[in-house]
Amino acid sequence: MYYIGIDLGGTNIAVGVLDEKGSILLKKSVPTLKERESSEILNDMGTLVNEVIAEYKLDKKDIHSVGIGSPGIPNSKDGILIYTNNLKFRNTDMRTALKQSTGLDTYIDNDANCAALGESVAGAAAGTASSVTITLGTGVGSGVIIDRKIYSGFNNAASEMGHHTIKFDGVQCNCGRKGCWEQYASATALIRQTIEAAKANPHSTLIEHCKDGNIKKASARTAFNAAKAGDRTGQDVCDTYIQYVAEGIANVVNIFQPELVVIGGGICNEGETLLAPLRKLVSERVYGSVVSEKDLPRPNIVKAKLGNDAGIVGAAMLGKYI
Amino acid sequence: MYYIGIDLGGTNIAVGVLDEKGSILLKKSVPTLKERESSEILNDMGTLVNEVIAEYKLDKKDIHSVGIGSPGIPNSKDGILIYTNNLKFRNTDMRTALKQSTGLDTYIDNDANCAALGESVAGAAAGTASSVTITLGTGVGSGVIIDRKIYSGFNNAASEMGHHTIKFDGVQCNCGRKGCWEQYASATALIRQTIEAAKANPHSTLIEHCKDGNIKKASARTAFNAAKAGDRTGQDVCDTYIQYVAEGIANVVNIFQPELVVIGGGICNEGETLLAPLRKLVSERVYGSVVSEKDLPRPNIVKAKLGNDAGIVGAAMLGKYI
Repeated sequence: MYYIGIDLGGTNIAVGVLDEKGSILLKKSVPTLKERESSEILNDMGTLVNEVIAEYKLDKKDIHSVGIGSPGIPNSKDGILIYTNNLKFRNTDMRTALKQSTGLDTYIDNDANCAALGESVAGAAAGTASSVTITLGTGVGSGVIIDRKIYSGFNNAASEMGHHTIKFDGVQCNCGRKGCWEQYASATALIRQTIEAAKANPHSTLIEHCKDGNIKKASARTAFNAAKAGDRTGQDVCDTYIQYVAEGIANVVNIFQPELVVIGGGICNEGETLLAPLRKLVSERVYGSVVSEKDLPRPNIVKAKLGNDAGIVGAAMLGKYI
Repeated sequence: MYYIGIDLGGTNIAVGVLDEKGSILLKKSVPTLKERESSEILNDMGTLVNEVIAEYKLDKKDIHSVGIGSPGIPNSKDGILIYTNNLKFRNTDMRTALKQSTGLDTYIDNDANCAALGESVAGAAAGTASSVTITLGTGVGSGVIIDRKIYSGFNNAASEMGHHTIKFDGVQCNCGRKGCWEQYASATALIRQTIEAAKANPHSTLIEHCKDGNIKKASARTAFNAAKAGDRTGQDVCDTYIQYVAEGIANVVNIFQPELVVIGGGICNEGETLLAPLRKLVSERVYGSVVSEKDLPRPNIVKAKLGNDAGIVGAAMLGKYI
């Protein structure tokens, strides 16, 4: 059997044909043009699915299902996208729309949940029954896999680790709360922390590691690059940032104790520069650290493997791991 | 079939005979005398089980199993208590000991997990498939029920919501971290907050609501009683405390989205004085609050029903809901 995955993003709609194991055989994408009505976007999604099927010369009888990874809060049971921040979708019946345009059974879930399922089936967590995938990007996305399936609570809105608070009365979050982990551990937060540090330390070289020497163009790499070049302020920014990441990961571990914690998002490309201190800080913080690892095994913390493809892979696998 | 539950506490060992539905038919207890060796305590547990069986005139063939709710970190799979703070148990094989003394199959789990299972089978969460029970006591205990079973992660140490941090670099916790929820939302924390407020506000009537008019004898009821009598400082203490409780409950909801959040521990006897403001604060904080409750149902927050019996009930049911 073959599986079709759709990653519905704010910028692009990406569609892939996958095999049983979750390997991508063919991938195509078109711009989302997110200001459009949901019906137009759904139309493009159906058209793109039919295109990849034709291009890969598939018989629809050999296709198990289509899966959609979507931003926002889906009602997976009924195939409806209840709400999303970025797109004009409100209680939109995606399942019926895709079924009509493609004739295929359609599943939907949240994009962070799909990324977690992707890593679980064919990525860094392959072979484990339980994992939590944390994506450090514009926000902090998280998906929880228990017994090889997505855990999403009774209303499909669960596992929003990015919106658990680590600092009571802290930085205002756009979810309405103050002090959400996302406000300290996302790439967006790291950029904010970098800019603040550059302003407070005018003699640091942070600005030299920004595009065009413009601090407003600081990226999530700026502080890491400055630190590697020996800049003390850059190192401080990284150290503090990793502490914030560790604080939330230790909470993830104390709450879920999964076999594996997978770190995704652009920042995970820092590799061991990020992961080595992170593992140390987390191991000092987790509950039961007084007990030896022999008696109480600990979750490992690893880098995501699938990069931007995690969403497509997980979406495609929704129908298989329902 | 009948079920035997053992609640192994720091003060007492309580044993109950239960029916299929989780109702307690007979209950007995003996002091734990916790300074003793584990073998002596295990001996008393076995003896007490055999006593209740004899007293209720049960045939062992009609007994499904024995369950033990224990403090600390158990290895449920192997029936071993790996570690506990309060008792001299280290990698203690409880299953084999009880099997030898009673001849019955024995299951063990953490006491907070047992309390959650108890409330799920025969208490406030009866009839739901998913619930999180939070016990506001000496610490903050928590147990997570998913698909009618205890969720405890790959190493049995999960669902330690009391040790997720809500205040980065906050109050030192005895788990080693700083800012754990338990340091703000437990009965112990409320007593600390009450004493601090009484010292900072010498004209408040808080002290009048302490035993012997001695602030050192403040209890978790002191601030609530003072507030009810119109004391402004007492009201402030309660308001702040409920904010801390709400902060963590909103995190529980964002992470688990269970059908029900059950609040247990002595403080839950404040009833709606605690629960009404708590529900309001949580509803303002949870993710997706921009979506109507019609489109996105929210977990309800209710008072625990079983009181101190929750542990025995859940322990007894371990073998049934494995």
